[in-house]
Amino acid sequence: MIWNSGWRLASAVSRAGGLGIIGSGSMYPEVLREHVRKCKAATALPFAVNIPMLYPDVDKHIATVIDEGVPIVFTSAGNPATWTGKLKDAGITVVHVTASVKFARKAEDAGVDAVVAEGFEAGGHNGREETTTMVLVPMVCDAVQVPVIAAGGIADGRAMLAAMALGAEAVQMGSRFVCSEESSGHPDFKQHVINSKEGDTILTLKELAPVRLMRNRFYEEVQQAYATCAGPEELRRVLGRARAKRGMFEGDLEQGELEIGQVGAALNDILPAGTIVTNVMEEFVEARRKLATLDIA
Amino acid sequence: MIWNSGWRLASAVSRAGGLGIIGSGSMYPEVLREHVRKCKAATALPFAVNIPMLYPDVDKHIATVIDEGVPIVFTSAGNPATWTGKLKDAGITVVHVTASVKFARKAEDAGVDAVVAEGFEAGGHNGREETTTMVLVPMVCDAVQVPVIAAGGIADGRAMLAAMALGAEAVQMGSRFVCSEESSGHPDFKQHVINSKEGDTILTLKELAPVRLMRNRFYEEVQQAYATCAGPEELRRVLGRARAKRGMFEGDLEQGELEIGQVGAALNDILPAGTIVTNVMEEFVEARRKLATLDIA
Repeated sequence: MIWNSGWRLASAVSRAGGLGIIGSGSMYPEVLREHVRKCKAATALPFAVNIPMLYPDVDKHIATVIDEGVPIVFTSAGNPATWTGKLKDAGITVVHVTASVKFARKAEDAGVDAVVAEGFEAGGHNGREETTTMVLVPMVCDAVQVPVIAAGGIADGRAMLAAMALGAEAVQMGSRFVCSEESSGHPDFKQHVINSKEGDTILTLKELAPVRLMRNRFYEEVQQAYATCAGPEELRRVLGRARAKRGMFEGDLEQGELEIGQVGAALNDILPAGTIVTNVMEEFVEARRKLATLDIA
Repeated sequence: MIWNSGWRLASAVSRAGGLGIIGSGSMYPEVLREHVRKCKAATALPFAVNIPMLYPDVDKHIATVIDEGVPIVFTSAGNPATWTGKLKDAGITVVHVTASVKFARKAEDAGVDAVVAEGFEAGGHNGREETTTMVLVPMVCDAVQVPVIAAGGIADGRAMLAAMALGAEAVQMGSRFVCSEESSGHPDFKQHVINSKEGDTILTLKELAPVRLMRNRFYEEVQQAYATCAGPEELRRVLGRARAKRGMFEGDLEQGELEIGQVGAALNDILPAGTIVTNVMEEFVEARRKLATLDIA
């Protein structure tokens, strides 16, 4: 959710009854502080900050969330043992995002309060095992005692219900909120997502860090590199710097890195974040009612 | 389910209240006829035959199911327009297996009675779009009027419930029945599946026909071919002939092609097929009861 989830989106989701999350991976330390302060000013309700632990200035982000009294932190892309203790000591609820049973167990051992089990269909950075939400969530639920939050492929109330059928206690939704009015993503990027169809995203750059993105000119260049049997160094050269900003924030649909989940293909509108939350809950109630009346067992 | 689903497995599933399916893709025409006759002798209940339409003698298989009065045929791996009319004229219920919305619509246009929407996590041959069950099933449900059967990642009652939450009216389970007593797969293959863990399968050979298989010595050779930038011809040479038989039927775990879904990592036992059906239904009922009592909306 880098370049998409700032204080506007996070506070709108929290005000609507969800838990808004500020994505700090694209923010300089002082920018994160500003977003946290604006989020606190916009809502008295709880919100969270996601911190990718591979972030170069991760210690500054950690200091910011502690200083500013952020109640909940989602850690991702790194070892949960590194920062969980410090965050917990500061009274922060810690949730770790994982794509495997192995790392879910590590996170539990590190003392996290909950884990996000995120499947292969999710947008952006992703696991090496390629395990999908349908397979991953029940395995993680069976492996850990802490609550499990399902992610990957969830953009409506039916999928939320499905995730809970698999044993999850909550869901984390990304792509659906990229296509919200409050997302700070470029309008052309949002429009491109709602125009997209199945097969338009692909998990690639597995030799560096697997990432799900939309096929475009930049991805064609990645493919050309693969076709000439490029190694990690050449791939890193093709990737270059600031591709994600260029694509998602600046709206360069051809040369930018456009991170979105497979479920982007199912999205058809850009809505206020609050409406998205309300819709999902209504769809959930309706889908559960239908499921209860199915005469099959 | 080639090399695994003959008359013993199909009749056991049908006797237990499921719809057993004979997988004809690994059978010579006279072998399929024998299996159909034995299945009819073993149960008066309905069963089905799956026919991959790329099968070289597909016309003979079609003739067999018509001659023998097989009530239901699942077609896969090919154009549903080619055989649906002929099968329907013979009074057969036709279900087409698809991995995309596009082909689900084509199948509906061809006059099929239902479609299977099979996700990326499924074992064996698979779609090019890599769409997972969680994303594919709701999209297919929204796109077609015929009933949708979910497949891919489904091996217990929780996943069956999840699939129905997504809008499916039934589920198709493969991997779980590979690990049944009645499966004709080699005992060493079944044992290898129940010993496996997350990440042990991979979707590969996309340049030929994408297939999900277990990582082993043969897969390492495929990887080596990729590392030297092999084209389709070289990949075809590495694949060679009869790999699937060698692996799944003859039990060569290193040089054979071992087709199984991601959910194989969650399987821990080899059970009678009837027990599997009973367990899944009990788990379904229990999971639905839990879901109904969740106080979240």
